[in-house]
Amino acid sequence: THQCKYVISWSIGITKPTYRNTKCSQCDWIFALYTFLDYDNSENQLFLEEERRMSYLGFRCLEISRWVVCGLIGFLTGLIACFIDIMVEQLTGLKYYVVKENIEKFTAGGGLSISLILWAVLNSAFVMVGAIIVAFFEPIAGGSGIPQIKCYLNGVKIPRVVRLKTLLVKVAGVICSVAGGLVVGKEGPMIHSGAVVAAGVSQGRSTSLKRDFKIFEYFRRDTEKRDFVSAGAAAGVSAAFGAPVGGVLFSLEEAASYWNQMLTWRIFFASMISTFTLNFFLSVYNKNPGELSNPGLINFGSFDRNVRSFVFVLTCECGGPPGGLLGALFNALNYWLTIFRIRYIHRPCLQVMEAMLVAAVTATVSFIMIYFSNACQPLDVVQGEDYPLQLYCDDGEYNSMATTFFNRPEKSVQNLFHNPPGSYHPLTLGVFTITYFFLACWTYGLAVSAGVFIPSLLIGAAWGRLIGIMLPVFPLQIWADPGKYALIGAAAQLGGIVRMTLSLTVILIEATGNVTYGLPLMLVLMTAKIVGDYFEEGLYDIHIKLQSVPFVHSEAPPTSHWLTAREVMSSPVTSFNRVERVGTIVDLLSNTSTNHNGFPVVVSNPAKLCGLILRSQLIVLLKHKVFVELARSKLTRRKLQLKDFRDAYPRFPPIQSIHVSQDERECMMDLTEFMNPTPYTVPQETSLPRVYKLFRALGLRHLVVVDDSNRVVGLVTRKDLARYHLGKHGLEELQLAQT
Amino acid sequence: THQCKYVISWSIGITKPTYRNTKCSQCDWIFALYTFLDYDNSENQLFLEEERRMSYLGFRCLEISRWVVCGLIGFLTGLIACFIDIMVEQLTGLKYYVVKENIEKFTAGGGLSISLILWAVLNSAFVMVGAIIVAFFEPIAGGSGIPQIKCYLNGVKIPRVVRLKTLLVKVAGVICSVAGGLVVGKEGPMIHSGAVVAAGVSQGRSTSLKRDFKIFEYFRRDTEKRDFVSAGAAAGVSAAFGAPVGGVLFSLEEAASYWNQMLTWRIFFASMISTFTLNFFLSVYNKNPGELSNPGLINFGSFDRNVRSFVFVLTCECGGPPGGLLGALFNALNYWLTIFRIRYIHRPCLQVMEAMLVAAVTATVSFIMIYFSNACQPLDVVQGEDYPLQLYCDDGEYNSMATTFFNRPEKSVQNLFHNPPGSYHPLTLGVFTITYFFLACWTYGLAVSAGVFIPSLLIGAAWGRLIGIMLPVFPLQIWADPGKYALIGAAAQLGGIVRMTLSLTVILIEATGNVTYGLPLMLVLMTAKIVGDYFEEGLYDIHIKLQSVPFVHSEAPPTSHWLTAREVMSSPVTSFNRVERVGTIVDLLSNTSTNHNGFPVVVSNPAKLCGLILRSQLIVLLKHKVFVELARSKLTRRKLQLKDFRDAYPRFPPIQSIHVSQDERECMMDLTEFMNPTPYTVPQETSLPRVYKLFRALGLRHLVVVDDSNRVVGLVTRKDLARYHLGKHGLEELQLAQT
Repeated sequence: THQCKYVISWSIGITKPTYRNTKCSQCDWIFALYTFLDYDNSENQLFLEEERRMSYLGFRCLEISRWVVCGLIGFLTGLIACFIDIMVEQLTGLKYYVVKENIEKFTAGGGLSISLILWAVLNSAFVMVGAIIVAFFEPIAGGSGIPQIKCYLNGVKIPRVVRLKTLLVKVAGVICSVAGGLVVGKEGPMIHSGAVVAAGVSQGRSTSLKRDFKIFEYFRRDTEKRDFVSAGAAAGVSAAFGAPVGGVLFSLEEAASYWNQMLTWRIFFASMISTFTLNFFLSVYNKNPGELSNPGLINFGSFDRNVRSFVFVLTCECGGPPGGLLGALFNALNYWLTIFRIRYIHRPCLQVMEAMLVAAVTATVSFIMIYFSNACQPLDVVQGEDYPLQLYCDDGEYNSMATTFFNRPEKSVQNLFHNPPGSYHPLTLGVFTITYFFLACWTYGLAVSAGVFIPSLLIGAAWGRLIGIMLPVFPLQIWADPGKYALIGAAAQLGGIVRMTLSLTVILIEATGNVTYGLPLMLVLMTAKIVGDYFEEGLYDIHIKLQSVPFVHSEAPPTSHWLTAREVMSSPVTSFNRVERVGTIVDLLSNTSTNHNGFPVVVSNPAKLCGLILRSQLIVLLKHKVFVELARSKLTRRKLQLKDFRDAYPRFPPIQSIHVSQDERECMMDLTEFMNPTPYTVPQETSLPRVYKLFRALGLRHLVVVDDSNRVVGLVTRKDLARYHLGKHGLEELQLAQT
Repeated sequence: THQCKYVISWSIGITKPTYRNTKCSQCDWIFALYTFLDYDNSENQLFLEEERRMSYLGFRCLEISRWVVCGLIGFLTGLIACFIDIMVEQLTGLKYYVVKENIEKFTAGGGLSISLILWAVLNSAFVMVGAIIVAFFEPIAGGSGIPQIKCYLNGVKIPRVVRLKTLLVKVAGVICSVAGGLVVGKEGPMIHSGAVVAAGVSQGRSTSLKRDFKIFEYFRRDTEKRDFVSAGAAAGVSAAFGAPVGGVLFSLEEAASYWNQMLTWRIFFASMISTFTLNFFLSVYNKNPGELSNPGLINFGSFDRNVRSFVFVLTCECGGPPGGLLGALFNALNYWLTIFRIRYIHRPCLQVMEAMLVAAVTATVSFIMIYFSNACQPLDVVQGEDYPLQLYCDDGEYNSMATTFFNRPEKSVQNLFHNPPGSYHPLTLGVFTITYFFLACWTYGLAVSAGVFIPSLLIGAAWGRLIGIMLPVFPLQIWADPGKYALIGAAAQLGGIVRMTLSLTVILIEATGNVTYGLPLMLVLMTAKIVGDYFEEGLYDIHIKLQSVPFVHSEAPPTSHWLTAREVMSSPVTSFNRVERVGTIVDLLSNTSTNHNGFPVVVSNPAKLCGLILRSQLIVLLKHKVFVELARSKLTRRKLQLKDFRDAYPRFPPIQSIHVSQDERECMMDLTEFMNPTPYTVPQETSLPRVYKLFRALGLRHLVVVDDSNRVVGLVTRKDLARYHLGKHGLEELQLAQT
């Protein structure tokens, strides 16, 4: 029952999964690509002294500044969402106008191929800009950013993910890719943007801009920063969907460690401010400042409370299986596409060209579909078509296929939900579903910043409405109008692709603004998830796995009780003495084969555990040459303070950059003041679920395993826990390819 | 900075708070009234063996049965809510009809005093029934039950709080007290009812009914039961307010331990089912099965999205201070009233008489106000007045004061929110606010089951609307109609009294069904809480404190870093050897002066910690006479199984009921199999916040403090942590009166 499995390693290539029946070992070097966050405060003497010096008033001020930071995060995230929305609207408006004029010019006289070329060129140009900045300047800004933020909140620090440059590229990139007519949404990137804003604002400085505002210095550690990033992600969700509660739940679902009441409250505050800011500025932009009707980038419009029938709620579950199946198909296709991309399209210029190709193909396919469609609808059925295209329809009619393409996708979703029965021809919907499905699948993973929420909703709404229209064959349609089936379809498709459950339900409830739809939505999301999980993982999980991220899930796999800390831990452990020779420290830190980040500190003879010290702390100590001998000789020497550690945070220099002379190597370093004197420990016999729970609940990075005399026997790290997961054959242990 | 404080002890009497500058000790006997829940699984050999035997399929079945239980909890909670609602509507309808007829009969001819007497007698009769069942049969069913459920979720097991009898008395009691016209709501008791349902359903048996259905045996332990009780409480909130997300957040805010994704999802499921069940059955009852427009017992009705002005949102904050002030006044008055009640009204018959007195006074006051009011309104202004009373108004008009009293309070709240400007006379609102405020304050704490949510909302809505009406004096009214000010006032008043923050905001957002009101509601709740906290604690906290419950808050007091485990822990600790003499165990367990519940197990020489065993486990062992000598003599003897512990759960017999002969006292008991071999431990130097975090995050009951050689030096329990709290003079240590 205990199997090893080779998994693909992102940076090298793909190894076909094989099974072995041996114990895994030495299989963690691939994880070395990432560093990890430590949500357990290092409560060393310096920290305790600072805390003890602080008065009650000091704590109050700190609390207030946390609120101020959260307010700022919400405000800035809302502003960014607003900026993206307005820019996209302007650019797409311009594009649709030009193309529409052009098509109308050539409709009668022929020569529509010129219109097609114009359209394709315009799209490709936008996408080219977006792809170039992503591929050449900041590849991490590509995609929706949700997998990266999930990893960050889980405790994995993907390099460059919360930098200012990433934010700028992300914002510009998403504007370009949406304006370029790609089958993408602008909602996913908002979550990443919010997180970057949070990481920046809360630190009171920008390393990229080389500016330190000397504020919020207290927040310069992983614990506090993670809290703010959670708030930022929540603010992003909130701005994207007008769903502040959904945002909070998203953050909690992902961060998922100890539930802290005040923190949750602050996250909620950031979310509220974010949606309100967006709402206010968009209302001002729409010249209707009092109305406040744009709580999010996408609004589903209001559904009536009338669910009409209990049976409708029950039939909703039937929307789950197709959603799950289509979602699994989407994910499987995207998985293979991603592997293909990793193998063959890894050079930036190729990535840009692929993105441009997709843009051109999207335009061509849309054009062909519009051209061959004869789904004409009278103009007065639907109000608010911004760019109705007549093409070959009679006067007073418009091409309904064209509207689905010549429209912001958010508007198309709304139309599918709310247009009265009869607005869409079944064939239009069917063809649209299929085309959009494949285009969306091809698009996700391109080197552009873009989200998958809106395409999923759109695909789902289309087939949901199609089902709703087809239902007159059965006596079912009396239960609800097609728009409600479109909503259920959209939820099913989105659930089938991303597999988020709790937060997604709440987001959708808030977007529909009606709690009555809660149960149907929840049921459809659950069935979609269950059906989808049977075939393939969620899209984000696939992408996280493809990057070999050691992701620690919220619970230990169910059948892991027979594993104990002894089997899970890494051993032997590199330990330091309380007073250690500088040469030993430098050599150990420089040893690239181990690359440990936390070291137990022991008092020798017998070697009992007395603390835990981090690589980053040792590096700061070495940099400031805090040696026992020097301290004795220069009495006036400034004592090292917490500030020195904070100034170096989060980009601690590598050990190679620190020069230690041969004389200094013989000096001694006293770690007592700097180590965490009370690290969490477990005995060797502790079961894996227990270790897992402690690790997750406290957000640990290192957990020391001790024997019954408090001697160090091993160290459990994230890598050790991430190895175990539940496969189809029971518990599996991952072994990473060493190719 | 370290002060001791005598606090009042519920069972004895009141000691005036005094301050001493000594270290507290021996101050925990009062806590012995309560037992505590252990959310840390005792992972002993029996448990691990069972888990290891279980297949993957077994875990899946277990997971499915958890879902089934949650569904059942939601369904039954919804049904109970529905039953209460229908019963109340029928009874009050009957009462109003009789009284109205009577008043109309005597209006012209005089003799209205007969009507008054009729009204008062009717009210008193209803209340008498409600008070008798509460005071004589199940006193714990009195009040809203929210403080009790808060305690339960926090880990304090208040006796009899989740029994079937409590539920029956609660349901009957709330129907009587609402029908008796007391100034109470039926929403708070729903939370308690949901929790009892959950505790009952999840255990698959009823001890009261002496029926064991032999199902869900796996769930018979504190960890699982607490999870289900959280779901039940959430389902209760959900049914009461139609706020499933608010319910989830309420549970999380109170249970507040490790955030578990699947658990949250199940809680959400229970909430959804609950609100849907209520909605469906109430719709059927209202002969409108398709509409589904009653998601909760109270609906605020739908507010338009039009917040009209940014300035309105900002002015909302101004609603906070009056709410906070009035709330603090309410709480302070109720505090002194409660102390008065503890001192002088502790006999059941006195309690019943007080309840009847309040009922009669409520009727009289209402009658007087209606009688002297001349606030007549034309009948057609408002639709849906069920019992318009003409009294001395002209034909075609009705007495607007009477409607506020002759109505279910939920309807009055809705009217205050939604009736068009001009429906209420300012004087009516003013007088109503004052009367209702004092009546509500007097009523809360009576020996009847009743909640404080609706009265709070009603008081707040009244003064909120009053402010809204008075605003024409200033140029403010253009920003919103009085109904919106009523909403803000209601939120402020409720927030000022109960001081819940996060969950209350979400509950109110869901009740209004409009996310645009999120920010104003949040701001007003926050300011109300800040202002209120300055003067007096929240109502529930006061009542929890009055009962001397060792409540562990979600975070350690901010200035507690200078305290370490060494100072906090209880020591010396009573330990057992791995193989212990039965006599020693019996003597220690019988020692009433210590009354410990968890005992470290040590291997002697040197005495290293090797496990932790609970009183309940020892009692089961003694009961089954699991002695080493007996095991040797009778080889066929059945091995003790986990089932034996589950069968005894949760009402383990007291040690006095177990008879151990003099011979048996000399036997030995081997604890190895039954103790938890890997208890969580901390070193002596661990700071209080770190201990606190570990304790809260894992839901511990005992935390062993060890020295650097893993020898037991102390034990931290809930009592040790609950002693420290943040007072106005910094950190304070509670010392309980020994009177």
